[in-house]
Amino acid sequence: MATYLQEGTILLERPAYIRGRGSVVGKEEAKGPLGKYFDITAEDTYCGEKTFELAERKMFEKACRHAVQQSRLQLKQVDLLLGGDLLNQIVTVSYAARSLGIPYLGLYGACSAMAESLAIGSLMIDGGAARNVLCAASSHFATAERQFRFPLELGTPKPPTGQDTVTGAGATVLSAEKGSIAIRAVTIGRCVDMGITDANNMGAAMMPAAAQTILTHLQNRRQQPTDYDAIFTGDLGEFGSGLLCDTTRKYGVEIGNVHQDCGMLIYRGMPHKKCGASGCGCCAVVLNGYILQKMLQGEYRRILFAATGALLSTTIVQQGESIPGIAHAIELERVN
Amino acid sequence: MATYLQEGTILLERPAYIRGRGSVVGKEEAKGPLGKYFDITAEDTYCGEKTFELAERKMFEKACRHAVQQSRLQLKQVDLLLGGDLLNQIVTVSYAARSLGIPYLGLYGACSAMAESLAIGSLMIDGGAARNVLCAASSHFATAERQFRFPLELGTPKPPTGQDTVTGAGATVLSAEKGSIAIRAVTIGRCVDMGITDANNMGAAMMPAAAQTILTHLQNRRQQPTDYDAIFTGDLGEFGSGLLCDTTRKYGVEIGNVHQDCGMLIYRGMPHKKCGASGCGCCAVVLNGYILQKMLQGEYRRILFAATGALLSTTIVQQGESIPGIAHAIELERVN
Repeated sequence: MATYLQEGTILLERPAYIRGRGSVVGKEEAKGPLGKYFDITAEDTYCGEKTFELAERKMFEKACRHAVQQSRLQLKQVDLLLGGDLLNQIVTVSYAARSLGIPYLGLYGACSAMAESLAIGSLMIDGGAARNVLCAASSHFATAERQFRFPLELGTPKPPTGQDTVTGAGATVLSAEKGSIAIRAVTIGRCVDMGITDANNMGAAMMPAAAQTILTHLQNRRQQPTDYDAIFTGDLGEFGSGLLCDTTRKYGVEIGNVHQDCGMLIYRGMPHKKCGASGCGCCAVVLNGYILQKMLQGEYRRILFAATGALLSTTIVQQGESIPGIAHAIELERVN
Repeated sequence: MATYLQEGTILLERPAYIRGRGSVVGKEEAKGPLGKYFDITAEDTYCGEKTFELAERKMFEKACRHAVQQSRLQLKQVDLLLGGDLLNQIVTVSYAARSLGIPYLGLYGACSAMAESLAIGSLMIDGGAARNVLCAASSHFATAERQFRFPLELGTPKPPTGQDTVTGAGATVLSAEKGSIAIRAVTIGRCVDMGITDANNMGAAMMPAAAQTILTHLQNRRQQPTDYDAIFTGDLGEFGSGLLCDTTRKYGVEIGNVHQDCGMLIYRGMPHKKCGASGCGCCAVVLNGYILQKMLQGEYRRILFAATGALLSTTIVQQGESIPGIAHAIELERVN
């Protein structure tokens, strides 16, 4: 039985364990500093398919199949697929679910999808509702940019706060069977909106939600930031990350020493990437490629993974609304 | 602790109880045969707002607040909001979550959203992850038609298989505290695709998923259709409902005596509505308005609620793909 503490923070009694993981990235991401940690690199932007949407779907399926294979499971032994992506009607996940044939629950939380799937998945395992759950998320630069911003053919330059959508898919198999890394607690976030209306400033739109979820988690768990070896945010980018540390400091909580941002890590040292990365796929591949591997190697023992989503809709922004953000936090610990 | 039987069917040990419910409908729905069962009727298509999207959001919030009020709870006592709608980036639910301020998990399962939220919500309660969960779904004729089909201004006539999207929002508060109606078991469905490509034939696109989920649930629970007082599908409409009974019959299961379709019930006797209704809001208001009320009145003791979603994306259909369907089933029982 899990315990609901307050404000979305839930303690697991029977932790869910990481049983397998898969990460598939595009060429740009493979060229970056984390390139060697990813399992599979797509041959090109189309992955041999006719459309970008089909390419993203192929990457998503590959990440899922890789994670299941690494778990030494057959697909039919996976009880549930929980996943999300950025596209309208989450077509990447829904069509991948059709070919994977696993009972499926579709999620939408923009770039918070990886954490959302891990939160629900781990609670399902704790509660006995499933034994093995596949959690996954993906994004693709070409499918996202044309849906949310401009057709790529226009060659529109990004402003300095603009982040590049990651081309990548990450998948985790959670299991009730004991493993090396456990999910101990989660905080399910609330929608927060500080009035950002610029589709090229996702970091600022998501930052308040990240700050709220991280502060809530620390408070409810009665922990200091340094009780974690690292606090990873999803994809705030350089601009949003700076704002985050400033904001938590105002609340008397200094996270600068332990904070890292998946959106900054994946493109670090690549000057043409400016402010960093965004997209569901960003923290999904950084978690399943880099972070979990570093935990297995002993570099991190205990981390907080807070994926952030900007709930951007072009229709609603054109109607004059601002962009709410959301963040969910997952507490992961090395247990043996 | 819940028990995962197989193929998505999960038995709850500590049932989740219906604690409150709310239903808000448009004028057309209020004029129909179920009109008297709904809590609130919107004054017009805009609900006093400037856009259809804002109108849908207002209805969604009203349904949620009504359900919470009926539960004799404050909003801050609700641990989680689980919801979905049809719009890109599920903007109805996401923006409503911003004003409701409850920890929030966004779902996308097209018209299966009500059942998806009840499935996750009831399992969260069984597992102790939450004590009170608000589950909700909505749709609006004007927002959905222009996103998925044609601008209303064109006045495009619907073919005979076309269903009208319901303008309505339904919400349920699930609770660990004992009540009169309990969720005993759920079946989380798989994506099924029989090759339908016509956006005006949602019933046929969803029917195979409905058949699979209902047959799976009956088999895994070792029940006959007549062990239920009624098996409700979400919004197959007249055409899809006929196909469903034919299909289960081919598998040796006769459900015709107990089958009812929310999409047919809501517009029954309204000749201009042709094939019936669709949309997330359809089964959400029929469940929270009509069905649960009939259970409380003793007309139904035990029912199966199988909401169906057509995972239609105009982008993907234009790329030559067909439309997969999904259905989740919720088993509800009157307990005192």
